[in-house]
Amino acid sequence: MYLRITLAQLDAVLGDFDHNVEKIKKAIDIAELERSDILIFPELFLTGYPPEDLILRTSFLKRNMQALNNVINYTKNKNTLVLLGFINVDTDAHNAAAIIQNGKLLGVYHKHLLPNYSVFDERRYFAPGDSPTIISLKEAKIGITICEDIWSPIGPMHEEVLEGAQIIMNLSASPYYYGKRQLRKNYVSQKAYDYHCPIVYCNLIGGQDELVFDGGSIVVDSNGNIVAEGKPFEEDIITVDLEIEENLRSNLHDPRRRHIEKGYFSPPVFIKAEGNFQHKNLKVTGKISYNMTKEEEIFKALVLGLKDYVRKNGFIKVVLGLSGGMDSSLVAVIAVEALGKENVVGILMPSMYSSEHSINDAKKLSENLGIEHHIISISEVYHSYEEALENIFKNYPRDITEENIQARIRGNYLMALSNKFGYLVLTTGNKSETATGYATLYGDMAGGLSVIKDVYKTDIYKIAAWYNSWKGSEIIPENIFIKPPSAELRPDQTDQDTLPPYEILDEILRLYIEEERAVEEIVERGFEKETVKYVARLVDKNEYKRRQGPIGIKISKRAFGKDRRMPITNKYREW
Amino acid sequence: MYLRITLAQLDAVLGDFDHNVEKIKKAIDIAELERSDILIFPELFLTGYPPEDLILRTSFLKRNMQALNNVINYTKNKNTLVLLGFINVDTDAHNAAAIIQNGKLLGVYHKHLLPNYSVFDERRYFAPGDSPTIISLKEAKIGITICEDIWSPIGPMHEEVLEGAQIIMNLSASPYYYGKRQLRKNYVSQKAYDYHCPIVYCNLIGGQDELVFDGGSIVVDSNGNIVAEGKPFEEDIITVDLEIEENLRSNLHDPRRRHIEKGYFSPPVFIKAEGNFQHKNLKVTGKISYNMTKEEEIFKALVLGLKDYVRKNGFIKVVLGLSGGMDSSLVAVIAVEALGKENVVGILMPSMYSSEHSINDAKKLSENLGIEHHIISISEVYHSYEEALENIFKNYPRDITEENIQARIRGNYLMALSNKFGYLVLTTGNKSETATGYATLYGDMAGGLSVIKDVYKTDIYKIAAWYNSWKGSEIIPENIFIKPPSAELRPDQTDQDTLPPYEILDEILRLYIEEERAVEEIVERGFEKETVKYVARLVDKNEYKRRQGPIGIKISKRAFGKDRRMPITNKYREW
Repeated sequence: MYLRITLAQLDAVLGDFDHNVEKIKKAIDIAELERSDILIFPELFLTGYPPEDLILRTSFLKRNMQALNNVINYTKNKNTLVLLGFINVDTDAHNAAAIIQNGKLLGVYHKHLLPNYSVFDERRYFAPGDSPTIISLKEAKIGITICEDIWSPIGPMHEEVLEGAQIIMNLSASPYYYGKRQLRKNYVSQKAYDYHCPIVYCNLIGGQDELVFDGGSIVVDSNGNIVAEGKPFEEDIITVDLEIEENLRSNLHDPRRRHIEKGYFSPPVFIKAEGNFQHKNLKVTGKISYNMTKEEEIFKALVLGLKDYVRKNGFIKVVLGLSGGMDSSLVAVIAVEALGKENVVGILMPSMYSSEHSINDAKKLSENLGIEHHIISISEVYHSYEEALENIFKNYPRDITEENIQARIRGNYLMALSNKFGYLVLTTGNKSETATGYATLYGDMAGGLSVIKDVYKTDIYKIAAWYNSWKGSEIIPENIFIKPPSAELRPDQTDQDTLPPYEILDEILRLYIEEERAVEEIVERGFEKETVKYVARLVDKNEYKRRQGPIGIKISKRAFGKDRRMPITNKYREW
Repeated sequence: MYLRITLAQLDAVLGDFDHNVEKIKKAIDIAELERSDILIFPELFLTGYPPEDLILRTSFLKRNMQALNNVINYTKNKNTLVLLGFINVDTDAHNAAAIIQNGKLLGVYHKHLLPNYSVFDERRYFAPGDSPTIISLKEAKIGITICEDIWSPIGPMHEEVLEGAQIIMNLSASPYYYGKRQLRKNYVSQKAYDYHCPIVYCNLIGGQDELVFDGGSIVVDSNGNIVAEGKPFEEDIITVDLEIEENLRSNLHDPRRRHIEKGYFSPPVFIKAEGNFQHKNLKVTGKISYNMTKEEEIFKALVLGLKDYVRKNGFIKVVLGLSGGMDSSLVAVIAVEALGKENVVGILMPSMYSSEHSINDAKKLSENLGIEHHIISISEVYHSYEEALENIFKNYPRDITEENIQARIRGNYLMALSNKFGYLVLTTGNKSETATGYATLYGDMAGGLSVIKDVYKTDIYKIAAWYNSWKGSEIIPENIFIKPPSAELRPDQTDQDTLPPYEILDEILRLYIEEERAVEEIVERGFEKETVKYVARLVDKNEYKRRQGPIGIKISKRAFGKDRRMPITNKYREW
C-alpha cells in the first residue's frame, strides 16, 4: 500500500498570518490536485519561527487560533490530510501540529522535547506534550513528531513505533549552520534504519533575523535511503509515494515501556482519518541529493539570509561602504546576488590614509558588479573634528581615538544616506574581527545587518575565490586577493600589526568560541601560549561591542548573538 | 531551643573567584566569632549571578569546584555550618547549595525549580534537582531551598516540611524591580505563616549588567512576622537567634504525598551536622523594615547598578552629554551619587538650535554638582558634514537626516573622550524614549550604559523632584522642571510635536509592554484608538534600534533587554 505525501517546504513570514495562510491554501490546492494523502508543513508555519516573546501576547495567540480556523474551513470538501504547525493554547501554550481533514480538526499533537540551548528558548514559551500520537489513514499508522522530538533517543518516535506507527512525520524548523545539512541526512537516515520506519522530514526555508532555514527536507525509506529531497535554500513543494509495510520492530520487547507505567508518557492518542485516494505507481518529485561545496553552501545561506532580512523588513535598497578590501567586496557581491545590482549602492569614503589602490579596487569592483557608487571623502569632516577637539585633546598624543573618529564619520555618512533615501546599511565585519573587537563601535559597526559576521576571515577569501570561479570572471579584482588586509586608519597600517596571522587566529577563535576550549587546552594543541591568551583576552574584552553591533547571519555552530550569551561584566579570566 | 543564624548579604563579582572566596572567608570568620550555628550565602555566590554562557565552559566549572574546595578547607576546625551557592557538576550541571562544616562537604542540594522566564535562562544551563534535603543540627531539622524553590506551591519546601523541617533556609539571587521588595516580604511571610515554619531568606546584593540585586534579606518567624531585615542596596551581615519548635503541620495529611510514590520527587535526603553552640538569649542584628518611597527606591537601585557596572568593569570616571534637559540632569545626579563628583565629566555640545537656557541650565547643574564640564560646539563639524553631503543630497529637502547627523556628532565627541581618557560614556535616554525610538542610534544612544533606560519620563520628573527635596536644595535647577522637553535638533522643536503627552504615553507603554495588553484592550480603558495604534507602531518599529542600544538597569517588571525578546523581523500588527 502506498501513501502519497506532499511536503510544503515554504518560507513563512513571522507574524504575517494573512501571508502565511495564503501560502498554506495554495499548498493545499496543490496537494489536492496531486491527490496526496498527506500534506505536511514545517514547524510553527502558521506563525513563522521563532516568534519569541510575541508568544507572551495573548492577542498574538488568538490571532494564531483564528488563522488556524481559517485554514480548517478551507479544507472543507477536500480530501488531503493536513499537518500544520501552530501554537495550541489550552491551559498552557504548546508548540503543536494540527491534524486537519475535510473542515475538521481531527486532533492536535504537542511537541515533547523543547530545545532550550544554542539559539533556542522553547522552555521559555511552551509546555511540553506527553502524548505520542498516531493517525490511521487507509491501513497505515502514522506517527507525528515535531523537530527536536526525533533528535534524541527519548523522544516520542520510540513510543509511536512501539505502538505500531509505520511512518513518522516530522514538522521542522531547523536553522542552518555549515555541516548541519549533512548531519541531518545522516541522522534522520540512521534513525529510519534503526527503527525500520520511513521518516518524512519537512523543514522550513527562509531567513528570520539571525537565522537561516535552509529547507533540504527529506523523505527516507525504511532502509535509511533518501528517496527525495527538497531544494536547498529555496522554496519547494515535493510529492512522494511511499510504500508502507507492517513494522516488525513494533513488536520488540522494550524496557522503556516502564516509562508509561511511571507516567513519563501519557497513553498514546489514536486518531482516525479518511483515506480518500488510492495510489499504485511510484511518484517522486524532488531531486535526490544536492551537492555543494562548503563555499557555495555558505554563500547561498548568506544570500538567502540577507534577501529575507531586507525584504521582510520592507527595504528595497541597501548601501554599504566599499573600502577596496575583501570583506566589503564580498558583502557587495552577496548583496547583488540577493537583491540585484540596481538595489545595491556602494560608497567609497577615502581618508588621508587611504591608498590609491584601495579606491581603484573599490571602483573596479563596483563597475564589475554594475552598481551605483559614490565617493565622499572624510578628510574635511575629520579636520573639523580635530579642530573641535583641539583644546580638550591638547598635550595628549594621537592614538586609537583619531582612528575611531574616522570610522565614525563613515558610519555617520552611511546612516545619513539610510535616513535620506531609506536604504538599509549593511556592515561588513567578519567573524575574526567581531570576535577580537577589531572594528569601531558606531563606526564600521553601524548598520542594520552584519552580513558576514559569522564567517572567519580565512573563509571569506575562500568564498570570494569560489564566487569568481563560479561566475567565470574576476568580478572581485585580483588585487583585492593579493594585498594585505588593512583598516587604513593610519599610515601603512595592516591587520597583522595587532592581530596574529588569520590562519592561526581563526583556529584559536574556533576552539575558544565554538568548542568552548580552555586556553590551556588550546595551548596543548600547539599554539603559542601568549598568542592564545592575547586572543582570549580580546574576545572577552569586546563583549560590550558585540552587544551593540547589528545582528548577523548564523552560519556556524556557534554564532555571536542569541547563540552565545556572555555577561559583559565578567571577571573570569583564563589569560 | 535557639538556632543562631548569620546571613551574608554580600556583593559577588561575576567570575572573580578569588574575590568571592575572600569575601566568603571573611564572612565565615564573622559567623564563627558570633558563634553562629549556620551561615547562609546567596544563590551562586561563589561564581556570581548570573554566569550565563560561562557555565558552558568546562574550565569555568572546574575553577568553581576548585574555589569550593578552597572554602571547604578553610572551614577546618571551625564550627559554623556553611550553606554556599555554587555550581555542582555531576552528570550534569546544577544550581546548588554546598553544605559545609569543619573541612567537610556534608552534602549538596540541587535547586528544583529552574526559572526560565523574564531575564532567567536557567533551563539553558542546569538540570533540576529532585531531592528535598533536610539537615539535622542540634535538635533542629533544617530544610534547604534555593530562590525559585519557595516561589511556587510545588517546590521542595512542601516536602521538606512534611518530612519534619522546622526551618527553611533559602539562598537567593532575586533581581530588583520596583514593587518586588514588598512582594517578597509579603510572599515569604505568608509562606512561613502557611506552613507555620520560619524562613531565612538570604538575597544577593549588587549590580550585574542589566540586573540589580537589592539585598533586603529577611528572617521570618513561624507566625509570618519579619524579625530581621538586611539593608536595602547595601552589603550587610546580620545575625539572628531563632527559636525552633516542633512543626505540627508536618503531621498533616497531604494529597501531594502521592508525588513521591509517582517518582515526582526522590525520597528526601537527610544530613547530620554538628551543633557546636548553645544560645539562650535572643540576638538580632538587622533593623526591621526599611521604608522608602518609590522615588528613593528606584534612585538607589540606579545608583547601585551604575556604581557596580562602572567599578566591576574597571572604569574610574564617566562622561555624559548635558543638554540642559531633565534626562541628562538626572543621570548626572545619579552618577555623582554613585561615583563622587570628581569622577563625573559633563559635556555641553550646543548646536545652532540649542537655546540659551539649555546651556545655562546645564552649566548651572554642573556647578551645583561641582563636576568638571566642557563646552564643545557641534556647529562647525555639522557644517562640514553638510558640505560633504551637499552633492548627494541636493534636490532633497531637509528632514530627520540632518537631525540625526547632529546627534551622531555628539556621539562621536563623547566616544572620542572615552577613547582618549578612558571614560565610560553614559547614555541618558529614558524608557518612554527607548520604547518609541525617540533617540538617534549611534547618536544620543552611543555609550556603555543606559542608566535610566527603564524609567518612564513621568517618573524621571518625580525622582528628580524627590532628589532635590532629599538634598534640601535645588541642585537640579528649577527651570529644568518647568520647560517643555525638547531634543533641540530643529528650531522650536518639542517632544510633544511627535509624541502624545507623557502621562498618556507612559500609561499606554506600560500596558503594552509590561502587561502585554492588546491594542484593543488598551483602547477599552479609555485611550484614543489612533494614539494607541501610533504608540504600538512606534514600539514595534523600533526594535532594531533597541537591539543595538547599550544595556540599561532594570527597575520595572519588564525592561527592554534580556527581559523582552522580540524579533526584529516581525510583521505581526495590531495597528
